[in-house]
Amino acid sequence: MIDVTLLGTAALAPIPERALSAALLTCGGRSVLFDCGEGTQSAARKAGVSLMKMDMIAITHYHGDHIFGIPGLLQTMYSAGRTEPVYIAGPEGLADVMYHLMTLAGELAYDVGLVEIPADGLRLCEIAEGWPREAVLSTFPTKHRCIAQGYSFTLGRAGKFNPEKARELGVPVKLWRELQGGRPVLVDGREILPGQVMGERRRGIKIVFTGDTAMCESLADGARGADILICDATYGDDSRAETATERGHMTFRQAAETARLADVKTLWLTHYSQSVTHPAMFLQNAMEVFPETVCGYDGMSVTLGFSN
Amino acid sequence: MIDVTLLGTAALAPIPERALSAALLTCGGRSVLFDCGEGTQSAARKAGVSLMKMDMIAITHYHGDHIFGIPGLLQTMYSAGRTEPVYIAGPEGLADVMYHLMTLAGELAYDVGLVEIPADGLRLCEIAEGWPREAVLSTFPTKHRCIAQGYSFTLGRAGKFNPEKARELGVPVKLWRELQGGRPVLVDGREILPGQVMGERRRGIKIVFTGDTAMCESLADGARGADILICDATYGDDSRAETATERGHMTFRQAAETARLADVKTLWLTHYSQSVTHPAMFLQNAMEVFPETVCGYDGMSVTLGFSN
Repeated sequence: MIDVTLLGTAALAPIPERALSAALLTCGGRSVLFDCGEGTQSAARKAGVSLMKMDMIAITHYHGDHIFGIPGLLQTMYSAGRTEPVYIAGPEGLADVMYHLMTLAGELAYDVGLVEIPADGLRLCEIAEGWPREAVLSTFPTKHRCIAQGYSFTLGRAGKFNPEKARELGVPVKLWRELQGGRPVLVDGREILPGQVMGERRRGIKIVFTGDTAMCESLADGARGADILICDATYGDDSRAETATERGHMTFRQAAETARLADVKTLWLTHYSQSVTHPAMFLQNAMEVFPETVCGYDGMSVTLGFSN
Repeated sequence: MIDVTLLGTAALAPIPERALSAALLTCGGRSVLFDCGEGTQSAARKAGVSLMKMDMIAITHYHGDHIFGIPGLLQTMYSAGRTEPVYIAGPEGLADVMYHLMTLAGELAYDVGLVEIPADGLRLCEIAEGWPREAVLSTFPTKHRCIAQGYSFTLGRAGKFNPEKARELGVPVKLWRELQGGRPVLVDGREILPGQVMGERRRGIKIVFTGDTAMCESLADGARGADILICDATYGDDSRAETATERGHMTFRQAAETARLADVKTLWLTHYSQSVTHPAMFLQNAMEVFPETVCGYDGMSVTLGFSN
């Protein structure tokens, strides 16, 4: 099961009804936080989610509205007794930014590690126990006014286990779990491979968080086939398309075009400019292009599981 | 007229109904902000006060819950088109802390100046036009786990102008304003001094913001005779007195004892620990010692003027 919660949906500056854009993804009891602007810790409390089992802050870029909540959150977790390490991922320049944030945060009773996400993604079980083996976090480049990246979380899904085949091969039931987990077993000196008893890999779950970005190919590629695309939708009105592109953002319609190109299942709009007082007023602009669009709001949450 | 608004009343970490402890003082259309933890800019919006005419952030000490809102606030004022300078005051160590905060805040279109408040106070009209000449900000040492100071704002008040005396001395009416403003005038070659036409100085207005502190003599001295003492009241229960002192804080009762010693008019409690879920439950502990106590809450505001 995966829980995705929007903690904030505001661009640039928080307003009373909208915290700065951030999202929390929880799976197997562990979490990744995407971006952490000023007020994210409050937003999490309001949304009723804990950040104590959050293993990683995945930063999309280093503008203040995406990172100024980090030192306060680190201090609060320290006060709350956290001892587990926290990892921070981000595009080029992470060490510099974190130097200042960590100096301000001061002494903590846990480690803060900076990680570079490998090109083929990071298995989250490598940074903390509890994450399913198949949970992988990847990045893709986006197009903003500074170096920026989006994140793609995938929970892969093995093929269906075939018990008849396992019995046929003489695998004792107590070893089935190993094969189901993708590990070979030895039976009377013969090596049995998972592929011999598992069907073809099935569709997993994919969640994408864009951060701030204009439309671009790498985003459409990175978001390909996502179940949820949490997408920059700074401006509601179509007339702002050029401004949006210039500033490295998107209109609702552009976000919808991205969703259509990337063939995602659902599009969540977020990161609203203060000019967007009522996102729903502009929803039609997106739905004309991509009907499965929803206007994100602070505290919006969904739980996804495998359907069979 | 002076407006005092509590923006937040929480210690350590914000909770949904309490932003981090901060207060705004406005006089003559200009403001001083006392402390600026994460979320202060949101808290100001909620309280319906603007920070755009705020000339100074007066920091009591450098713990995160009192300063992490600074870079975001500076950026937001920049986005909103601010061009007027902002001054930052704080105890020893200000330059170091501000180096990190300013690096994170990045480029701004206005100046940020660090100021040291002189021992006899700073006339605020020296940093920005609009402040009355008699508005003075002073500091006094407090007792926390790090170097810390409290602030005292005074709006002095000249004596009553005596028009009969002015006429007697032959001062033309158009020069009365000069004398009322404390400046000597020349009448037919004779110098007339303000003291010749003004009565004795009258009681002014004094507002004190303690920041985090245990009871101490310098606080009682600094707060002497204040109209409002906005005071650390971290713990409600009397049994926490020792803990409070150890940690450089106060209980409600200790805050009240400070108010009594300092002979203030009104005590505002603030900076509540999360253990204080309902401040009013502990108000009696303070009122037994000092009846003119109120439990501060986010957005609480008062306007003070001279009574005659």
